[in-house]
Amino acid sequence: MNVEGKAYRTIWQGGDGRSVEIIDQTRLPHEFVTVALRTVDDVIHAIRSMQVRGAPLIGVTAAYGVCLALSVDESDEAFDAAYDALLASRPTAINLRWALRTMRGVLSEAARDDRVAAAYETAAKIADDDVTSCKAIGQHGAQLFAGLARDKEEQKGDEPLNILTHCNAGRLATVDYGTALAPVYAAFDAGLAVHVWVDETRPRNQGASLTAWELGQHGVPHTVIADNAGGHLMQHGRVDVCITGSDRTTGTGDVCNKIGTYLKALAARDNGVPFYVALPHSTIDWCLSDGIAEIPIEERDQREVTHISGLGEDGSVITVQVTPHGSPAANVAFDVTPARLVTGLITERGVADASADGLVALYPERAR
Amino acid sequence: MNVEGKAYRTIWQGGDGRSVEIIDQTRLPHEFVTVALRTVDDVIHAIRSMQVRGAPLIGVTAAYGVCLALSVDESDEAFDAAYDALLASRPTAINLRWALRTMRGVLSEAARDDRVAAAYETAAKIADDDVTSCKAIGQHGAQLFAGLARDKEEQKGDEPLNILTHCNAGRLATVDYGTALAPVYAAFDAGLAVHVWVDETRPRNQGASLTAWELGQHGVPHTVIADNAGGHLMQHGRVDVCITGSDRTTGTGDVCNKIGTYLKALAARDNGVPFYVALPHSTIDWCLSDGIAEIPIEERDQREVTHISGLGEDGSVITVQVTPHGSPAANVAFDVTPARLVTGLITERGVADASADGLVALYPERAR
Repeated sequence: MNVEGKAYRTIWQGGDGRSVEIIDQTRLPHEFVTVALRTVDDVIHAIRSMQVRGAPLIGVTAAYGVCLALSVDESDEAFDAAYDALLASRPTAINLRWALRTMRGVLSEAARDDRVAAAYETAAKIADDDVTSCKAIGQHGAQLFAGLARDKEEQKGDEPLNILTHCNAGRLATVDYGTALAPVYAAFDAGLAVHVWVDETRPRNQGASLTAWELGQHGVPHTVIADNAGGHLMQHGRVDVCITGSDRTTGTGDVCNKIGTYLKALAARDNGVPFYVALPHSTIDWCLSDGIAEIPIEERDQREVTHISGLGEDGSVITVQVTPHGSPAANVAFDVTPARLVTGLITERGVADASADGLVALYPERAR
Repeated sequence: MNVEGKAYRTIWQGGDGRSVEIIDQTRLPHEFVTVALRTVDDVIHAIRSMQVRGAPLIGVTAAYGVCLALSVDESDEAFDAAYDALLASRPTAINLRWALRTMRGVLSEAARDDRVAAAYETAAKIADDDVTSCKAIGQHGAQLFAGLARDKEEQKGDEPLNILTHCNAGRLATVDYGTALAPVYAAFDAGLAVHVWVDETRPRNQGASLTAWELGQHGVPHTVIADNAGGHLMQHGRVDVCITGSDRTTGTGDVCNKIGTYLKALAARDNGVPFYVALPHSTIDWCLSDGIAEIPIEERDQREVTHISGLGEDGSVITVQVTPHGSPAANVAFDVTPARLVTGLITERGVADASADGLVALYPERAR
């Protein structure tokens, strides 16, 4: 990701060989600020407060959290304490558990003296693998977009492919490239005419603040819309395809993602618009078969609904209250889109039907 | 409507016998301010800038706009100019045209010297009729809620009836009582345990700013949620009924209402939750049979998406920018919910099927 001419990932090891640096995503789009995380508590705070967010990036950050914990105390007890605290930092994204289990698997076989080095090596590998996965997702999705664009050209002539996305599943949700936005970048870079409808994505506005920002940085044409608008646009043929990310995907293809994703999937189905979900295998929770009943849904502070931050006229970032005093709010962070509404799952291995059979066809090692 | 112990309608004739006073709804919920409208241009500004909004209230305000125009110049030309300018002030709500046609019907038969008096008399009657209609909608809807509450009690015991509403179709959208909220107030006042999920309703936040405020003033239990949340709540059995207003209803039962209504109707259908729409007959456009193709949808200033106003820490109302510089936004104000997704239409005459037959059964004078 290029920001003001300089290449960035969303997370990288600091120059001291120990700390980890991140882009503070709570400051975007109005301020680009990087932060050094020096302790496991810094990491937990970064995940909880959503300085880092997005299922793949949460996983990588948690892996580095283990590194920071072990660099102070490499005992089993210290590892277990860090594991539990990191796992509890956000309940829905399964990549967190996946990354921690990956760390445990490697570290349980490492000699105590080698643990810290092995931890950093493994965390770096998880980060690099995420980049590789996202690139592959981008290629598979871009092929799919190219096919949709050819179909559209036959029907409507020389219009851009209109892609609707919800929340941010872009570079900022991963180490780089993104999941849902990786195909957008790949298609755009290959010269396909695309335009992205960016759902604002209340609360926290990850669409308006993060997706719009990163698409803008890359020069991809886009338009921010209220979350309410997508259904109308689909009714009027102004959306050719929807694509989102996933925070947890059941082995049967149900998709848990930012609250509101389900509503867009319903509208897509009602209007014959394909609805794809892009995800690396690390977001698949193979044990689950009923996303609505089984996936724990995080409820966050009501202040994320009652208050909103933005750029004031004086150029400073200001928080304002939008609800009346005394009106309570509820803040459910995710919803589940049943597999029946998902046209396909785009993973690093290709495009799967959103079903147990579809996923096992791509991941035969998971066949029971 | 009681505000700080004083009874208010949303619009009333000023003490000078000529001007019209309104509650400035752009200042709510943080400031309660009334404004005097003294010219037809004041009225057009009030409608355009949404100091008054809500289909029934827009109609009444436009009727008073005619009064103000005629009080300066009672000629046919002045009437026609006011008619055209008021009609163009907002394109979607059909009550505007209905009220103006009602004024034209009466005034075309009035002697020129009597026109101004006849205009004020007719505008006052339109306002009073709206109150009567809304009270009747309240009674019909409250009966329906009572039936739903009985069914729920048998299944779930002593829980309140959970009602989800979108935008503001309450006292502030009408002269008093409301359309969608009239049954809520009537049920609550009759002692039924109710709780309202208030969709924030981006952009412009009429739910968070107006519905939450007026429910709070009346003491009705409610919780503000992001527009994205309703589908999840329905999936988990936390919504018993949805009810919204309508800005224009086709003779076949399609409902045009604030953008996002369609998404909630899809979720209600997908989860077996009844979806009702409350409206006075003045919002029915009998000539139309295909809402998606035929109803003009207003597109408003993108600033309503890119910027948001709220209460700053110092107690002043501040506007902040939520999107990055350079990211454009689109602002479609309404969408159309097809009749097939609407459980019933609650009008001043009772509950109709959302269909041509259903509406004609309630309004036999409209049978062709």
